[in-house]
Amino acid sequence: MELFYSCDIEDGVLRLDAEESGHCVRVLRHRAGDEICVIDGCGTLLRCVLTDADPKGATAQIIGRESGFGSHPYRLTMAVCPTKNIDRYEWFAEKATEIGLDVLAPVIGDRSERKVLKTERLERLVKSAAKQSLKGAIPEVREPVSVKEFIASVPDDAVKMICYCFEGEKKSVREALSEAAGSGLLPHVRKGQNRQEVPAAQPCASPDIYILIGPEGDFSPEEAALALSRGWIPVTLGNSRLRTETAALVAATMVYSEF
Amino acid sequence: MELFYSCDIEDGVLRLDAEESGHCVRVLRHRAGDEICVIDGCGTLLRCVLTDADPKGATAQIIGRESGFGSHPYRLTMAVCPTKNIDRYEWFAEKATEIGLDVLAPVIGDRSERKVLKTERLERLVKSAAKQSLKGAIPEVREPVSVKEFIASVPDDAVKMICYCFEGEKKSVREALSEAAGSGLLPHVRKGQNRQEVPAAQPCASPDIYILIGPEGDFSPEEAALALSRGWIPVTLGNSRLRTETAALVAATMVYSEF
Repeated sequence: MELFYSCDIEDGVLRLDAEESGHCVRVLRHRAGDEICVIDGCGTLLRCVLTDADPKGATAQIIGRESGFGSHPYRLTMAVCPTKNIDRYEWFAEKATEIGLDVLAPVIGDRSERKVLKTERLERLVKSAAKQSLKGAIPEVREPVSVKEFIASVPDDAVKMICYCFEGEKKSVREALSEAAGSGLLPHVRKGQNRQEVPAAQPCASPDIYILIGPEGDFSPEEAALALSRGWIPVTLGNSRLRTETAALVAATMVYSEF
Repeated sequence: MELFYSCDIEDGVLRLDAEESGHCVRVLRHRAGDEICVIDGCGTLLRCVLTDADPKGATAQIIGRESGFGSHPYRLTMAVCPTKNIDRYEWFAEKATEIGLDVLAPVIGDRSERKVLKTERLERLVKSAAKQSLKGAIPEVREPVSVKEFIASVPDDAVKMICYCFEGEKKSVREALSEAAGSGLLPHVRKGQNRQEVPAAQPCASPDIYILIGPEGDFSPEEAALALSRGWIPVTLGNSRLRTETAALVAATMVYSEF
């Protein structure tokens, strides 16, 4: 199934931008009257009939809508410090989108070697990964902020997990999620039961989960202390020594496997 | 910590090959008398003193050994059909090594578009990933065999999981491992308790876990039927539509997170 994307939707009619139109009409040779599937990037799949096969700006009539298309029953924000080698970060963004990601928030730590990040390429990557993995929602890619700004910006009632190398008691991601479920923060987590039984959550009911991953040189003690003071739970990703982007993907997978 | 690799070890003395010697002496400028750490690729970390800093063939005296260095309490064989784009397969091999992998067994399915695979690059990748992630053991990379040959070659008493898209009852990886633990196949699986409590298993005690992942076009019905007839457990990796290499890494991570 080939998905297109459009955010230009009005009165049951949508328009594809030049890039999507070219792919639809020139590459895939769709013609007026063909049925195509379009995502709105916010979670809805739109079944459409192509009405104008203009390769620079195709239009289509919406004949059906499926909300929560390819959704997951939680809302995951991954706040990850950009890696020195940006390919590894882009790889993470693509894979996390396939698995289940809602917000990619690049954060710059006190010890980050990379202090700047262009988000355009990331936006293109997560859009194409979302279409490729049949998801109606495209992850939001935020502009980079400092780790301290990010920590301060996260609501108190979210489940907030931080991965760092400092000593001290740490929970597994599963334990942190189970305790959050016990406290009512995570209505849908099923603590190891067959996730296929888990009902699709309404967006409004999706629990907010935040995971914070530091740079190659780890967080500064000040950043770690601030997170702890704001109720972030230190979690362990197991005994393997993982690169930043691998740790981020393992954490996203551990969340995914709990629902 | 910088690790070197040597399989040329005799009477407490080891020799680094030309590549490792060059890296040790030319790049890192180690001199005779320096302490270096070397892995034997079979799980042991060797603490050594460099005795001859020959950039083409350095030798070192072993002064300490640490077995089970960076080990995990299970033995995981990932049998994965090579992807059309080999970069994605190499990426999986590198990441799975970081997380925990013992054997990479490329398998060719009836529907595989890629029928041949050179293993030299994969061997170099997993060796460098093992050193980078501080593991004493380097995953074994097997020569490709057909899916049917592979299925027939796996011992009956191993935990064997297959990921396919055919209909029918499927278990989660966690359920499959928990049931295996219940049947005594997996002495170390802890069903969701804090994995930090899990004692490091002796190699001989490590449960044998096999995961089989098909090509982009899935397994053929004959391959799936053969696997079922040989006791392979169909597992689900959740509701997300994952690429071959992503599915393989998610499966490896799901095993990792159970120990």
